[in-house]
Amino acid sequence: MADPTTCPPLLSSSIASARAKIRPYIHRTPVITSRSLNTIASSPDPKVFLSENPPTFEDAERSRNPETTPCFRLFFKCENFQKIGAFKARGAFHAVTRLVEEMGIQEVRRRGVVTHSSGNHAQALALAASTFQIPSYIVMPSISTPSKIAGTRLYTSNVIFSGSTSQEREAVVQEVIADKGAILVPPYDHPDIILGQGTVGLELEEQVDEILQELAAASSPPSQTQIQGQSPIGGTKEKKEKKKNVGGLDAVITPLGGGGLLSGVATWFSDKPGTLVFGAEPSYQGGDDGRRGLAQGKRIEHVKTLTIADGLRTPVGVTNWEVLSDRRKLEGVYAVSEEEIKMAMRLVFERLKVVVEPSGCVGLAVVLFNSEFRALCASRQIGMEKEGWDVGIVFSGGNTTMKAIAKLFGEDNEGGSAEREAAKVGMDGTTRAEDVAG
Amino acid sequence: MADPTTCPPLLSSSIASARAKIRPYIHRTPVITSRSLNTIASSPDPKVFLSENPPTFEDAERSRNPETTPCFRLFFKCENFQKIGAFKARGAFHAVTRLVEEMGIQEVRRRGVVTHSSGNHAQALALAASTFQIPSYIVMPSISTPSKIAGTRLYTSNVIFSGSTSQEREAVVQEVIADKGAILVPPYDHPDIILGQGTVGLELEEQVDEILQELAAASSPPSQTQIQGQSPIGGTKEKKEKKKNVGGLDAVITPLGGGGLLSGVATWFSDKPGTLVFGAEPSYQGGDDGRRGLAQGKRIEHVKTLTIADGLRTPVGVTNWEVLSDRRKLEGVYAVSEEEIKMAMRLVFERLKVVVEPSGCVGLAVVLFNSEFRALCASRQIGMEKEGWDVGIVFSGGNTTMKAIAKLFGEDNEGGSAEREAAKVGMDGTTRAEDVAG
Repeated sequence: MADPTTCPPLLSSSIASARAKIRPYIHRTPVITSRSLNTIASSPDPKVFLSENPPTFEDAERSRNPETTPCFRLFFKCENFQKIGAFKARGAFHAVTRLVEEMGIQEVRRRGVVTHSSGNHAQALALAASTFQIPSYIVMPSISTPSKIAGTRLYTSNVIFSGSTSQEREAVVQEVIADKGAILVPPYDHPDIILGQGTVGLELEEQVDEILQELAAASSPPSQTQIQGQSPIGGTKEKKEKKKNVGGLDAVITPLGGGGLLSGVATWFSDKPGTLVFGAEPSYQGGDDGRRGLAQGKRIEHVKTLTIADGLRTPVGVTNWEVLSDRRKLEGVYAVSEEEIKMAMRLVFERLKVVVEPSGCVGLAVVLFNSEFRALCASRQIGMEKEGWDVGIVFSGGNTTMKAIAKLFGEDNEGGSAEREAAKVGMDGTTRAEDVAG
Repeated sequence: MADPTTCPPLLSSSIASARAKIRPYIHRTPVITSRSLNTIASSPDPKVFLSENPPTFEDAERSRNPETTPCFRLFFKCENFQKIGAFKARGAFHAVTRLVEEMGIQEVRRRGVVTHSSGNHAQALALAASTFQIPSYIVMPSISTPSKIAGTRLYTSNVIFSGSTSQEREAVVQEVIADKGAILVPPYDHPDIILGQGTVGLELEEQVDEILQELAAASSPPSQTQIQGQSPIGGTKEKKEKKKNVGGLDAVITPLGGGGLLSGVATWFSDKPGTLVFGAEPSYQGGDDGRRGLAQGKRIEHVKTLTIADGLRTPVGVTNWEVLSDRRKLEGVYAVSEEEIKMAMRLVFERLKVVVEPSGCVGLAVVLFNSEFRALCASRQIGMEKEGWDVGIVFSGGNTTMKAIAKLFGEDNEGGSAEREAAKVGMDGTTRAEDVAG
């Protein structure tokens, strides 16, 4: 990996440069909006919309108490439509283009790149490397699911198997480094990765600006302008100049695992005080290590959870922690239960008609179901110049399978047994911060 | 319903007028493309990509025999993102705006509209009516699933229950007509509905034109222009002028149930001989009544199937048949098995990350798995001026639930038992052409 001491600083300007570098290789994924989800999120108890007998939208709107019910307009950044199905492509392409800049393409091609991961980072690095005809070596536990191995093999023929403990995996990585001189590209704990992932924040701000401008332009009566994205809430009041400068977003929330995505997005918005940045985690078996770490003022180094949000089983990385523990950059982290993640996923699937993996749904789950977060929004909206919060929610990825969905939502699993199901998945949930998982 | 004798003729110009009328009320849904699905569709045996050990894309491309393997570039029209989650919103809004034109808004508001349906047409009509403050009466069998009843109740408080046979449902509709003077809006067998659904064809052609122009503009080297929608096949060769005039699409394929969508799309392309129009049906329990009817030269009036493609259980309507039995308008209809529908659905879900209901996946299933259709494409592409077929595929809707998905793709259902599962759904599968299902 590029020497961190020569990396660009963790500033929004570095994210703008990262974007210019990776732009030809990644998708500018769409931002989608949904009147239904705005209404559901802005109702006193969003859970009722998942019952067999949901209220009508009109009833839900009538039952709002503007003093206690938060009001939301949601903007979903769909990284599930990103290359390889997750935001990880951004960090991987940025890391690889930076290596090429620093060492020259010939040297990088001669040595190759290596990582160990059974997840989205493996595919992302293999894709980025293959785009530049750079060999990539991906170390995966031999017990990885066939679909993940197959996904990685689409882009590299060098999948190398190891045992499943982190010691065993690291030993194989060290062999590859010794043997080939390959350069390690970690999944999140590196400035180049963080800056790459931060481009999600840049694009989201840009796209929400575009959507709000379109909405402002479409000022004819509502029934004449039923365009996607129009919200049932406000919009007629003039916004403050200050709000306009920060793209209209009052808050952004992303999943928090190792922290690459969240620290990148927090870095992008760090000089935009009008936009608060939040993280979302699974609470299951202590998966909320970020939240707990912030509470005790110290990074938690070990996590062992089998949460269904399998991309978020890792503890926060060292570089990531430096960003996330800065209150000027991150407003807070909230956690949700397995059942809440599943409910959010159902709404995404049934209402938005898009496929987001469990890890990608935790941000929406916080907005819908975390009473602490909702109380915060309700209390702060009272003094706002508009009717409620404009919130960007990052759908981080969509890499799940029909088989996994059927397992999670099958009849045996109705009524709150997501926990039991996760435990059955049968994977060593222990990870350490230095693990190269992804 | 508007008197058919005063309806605009079934011509593409009438579809252009329909579009102008409904444009403020519906979404111009996106057209999406996927390199992965192009590669899979253009490989000798797409099924292998659903195995536990799929080939790499490079291997798949190497194994092609250009004489026998069809080559496709696919354009997916996402009506699953349409209002109420299906194309039915188009026909319903067109029918309602036409009624208002013919009778005046006061008269239509006084009388209201009525239909009987347990499906997407019910929600579509309720939405269209409520947009104009017109009362709507939706007759549903009392055994309908709670989610469908709830979906309809979002837009109307007049859901009226009936028995489940078509006689019982029609009797209730007749009561509503006698009692309220309500106007019947059928789901597919009417020119206004057909013209409304035909706007799918108009938009698809327009959007594919836009995509092809963008691709032509992006003529820098492939690694520099990895935009979504870029295909691995051809594109450098100059297209014939004639091809340009027909928007580049060589074929369009839509699901065929009652025939509203297919006859509308066939009408749109009827004066564009460069674009062939095909229908796709489930073969299960004789659900391919359109295909069989064309083979015997006579509309089949009764169908009884419990196919998982539950939107396609109806026989083709009378007006629809007039369009579809015209060889100048429709090139042919192909059928697929339940297992093939499920495989297509898995690819849509896992590769495209979008949710499409089983009925919406039959077009892709034909392209991927119907050997007759694929042989036709392979044989005709030999003389083509470009490398293969540009095919528009209509994803007609996305109204399914996690529960239904879990049932279809749960472990009990692996290995070809979709048929068994459909049979368990426990619904009277008999429908007649005059049934107002949808």
